[in-house]
Amino acid sequence: SGLVHVKNPHLDSMEEDILYHLDLGTKTHNLPAMFGDIKFVCVGGSPNRMRAFAQFMHKELGLTGDGEDLADICAGTDRYAMYRAGPVLSISHGMGIPSISIMLHELIKLLHHAKCRDVTIIRIGTSGGLGIEAGSVVITDTAVDSSFKPQFEQVVLDDVVVRSTELDKDLVEELLACSKEIPDFPTLIGHTMCTYDFYEGQGRLDGALCSFSSEKKLEYLKRAYDAGVRNIEMESTAFAALCGLCGLKGESSRSRFRVL
Amino acid sequence: SGLVHVKNPHLDSMEEDILYHLDLGTKTHNLPAMFGDIKFVCVGGSPNRMRAFAQFMHKELGLTGDGEDLADICAGTDRYAMYRAGPVLSISHGMGIPSISIMLHELIKLLHHAKCRDVTIIRIGTSGGLGIEAGSVVITDTAVDSSFKPQFEQVVLDDVVVRSTELDKDLVEELLACSKEIPDFPTLIGHTMCTYDFYEGQGRLDGALCSFSSEKKLEYLKRAYDAGVRNIEMESTAFAALCGLCGLKGESSRSRFRVL
Repeated sequence: SGLVHVKNPHLDSMEEDILYHLDLGTKTHNLPAMFGDIKFVCVGGSPNRMRAFAQFMHKELGLTGDGEDLADICAGTDRYAMYRAGPVLSISHGMGIPSISIMLHELIKLLHHAKCRDVTIIRIGTSGGLGIEAGSVVITDTAVDSSFKPQFEQVVLDDVVVRSTELDKDLVEELLACSKEIPDFPTLIGHTMCTYDFYEGQGRLDGALCSFSSEKKLEYLKRAYDAGVRNIEMESTAFAALCGLCGLKGESSRSRFRVL
Repeated sequence: SGLVHVKNPHLDSMEEDILYHLDLGTKTHNLPAMFGDIKFVCVGGSPNRMRAFAQFMHKELGLTGDGEDLADICAGTDRYAMYRAGPVLSISHGMGIPSISIMLHELIKLLHHAKCRDVTIIRIGTSGGLGIEAGSVVITDTAVDSSFKPQFEQVVLDDVVVRSTELDKDLVEELLACSKEIPDFPTLIGHTMCTYDFYEGQGRLDGALCSFSSEKKLEYLKRAYDAGVRNIEMESTAFAALCGLCGLKGESSRSRFRVL
């Protein structure tokens, strides 16, 4: 049917669903009227960048107006920012798995309540490149954890549930084909490693704490490269797991720094 | 000596330390002049609330000016917001352990570079209360993980390092004594449980996914209460572990919702 799947038997019996961190709700907003025609959702960490992306999309799609005064749909909260340009929704998710998870739970319910069909979701953002040219775009085929496994361990109460992090193969190929139409846009397909920590988790030597040697860091990053990892960030496994379970597809991740 | 401890042997040999997510650095800013006299740091999730808190502190301390036009010290980035009122620094940290960890690494380095002494750090924020009166303030004696253990498992490269999450006992008693000076301010000391997820991790029945029964949720929350947990949030174990290792002390956490 192309509809978004919500996998929560309690939801149907709720009189009102409040999407707390988006400042939206089923009683306070007409979600089908506001969002029913959305076909693409792009998500990224920074609110300013997601506004700039919506302005860019507004121009690319040739929409009326200059797109400079796009309103933040979530203006009532400072947890996330959301903008739309035609059928494209652009939302910030903050940094790290817990932050993107809260946004995705509420976004998925929003798309469900709005009865959206055939929605593609793409995460765009900076990441640390691994043995690749600085500025390259990595299109993620599989998100992996810090042990290079294609899985996301979700803690549910005090149980750990292991979820798959594979992404839509057709979308990966489609995005690669798009990149070939643009000159000087180095793009590759690879695994993306997702960590819980920016400093100690990614082997950075410039945190407040650093309990490993630079040799150990190099050995770890080489093993990651050999396992197919081409970039490192902090949201992809949760993104892939949640979107996969709910019938959404996608991801691309931008590499800005050369790590290795 | 009262100085903040940075535990990274690489830091001294770095020509420049860039605090990326705060938009500050040792070459671009005179950190001792800007921050050397800071004695208290208050951190919380939302940038708007931390601005409001700084304005409140400005008035409480009787500082000159109306405090309405406090400048965001991190205005060059939208990752975090930072304000100061006299010796008090007020900083937002976003939601979840990865987000607060990035901020704390850079804050601890900032306090180190600025040669601050005897700094107290307090996390203030909303949380889910457990079996307590709505609106109560819980002063955290120990932060515990989702298995009610007083520890934080930090992934360093692909190793897991277990860290203590105890907080400063004297500060806990001092904060409790403060609360007694204010009428109608229900305050208690208890354990604070820190989860990686807001919906499935905290037993909420209103997420996009819900794979447990309401009976199982209730049984889990009862076990948490019996283990001494009085509120639930998403940052306290990482906060306690990082601050403890670096010689900072403190925490209080505000309960807004009654969960049980």
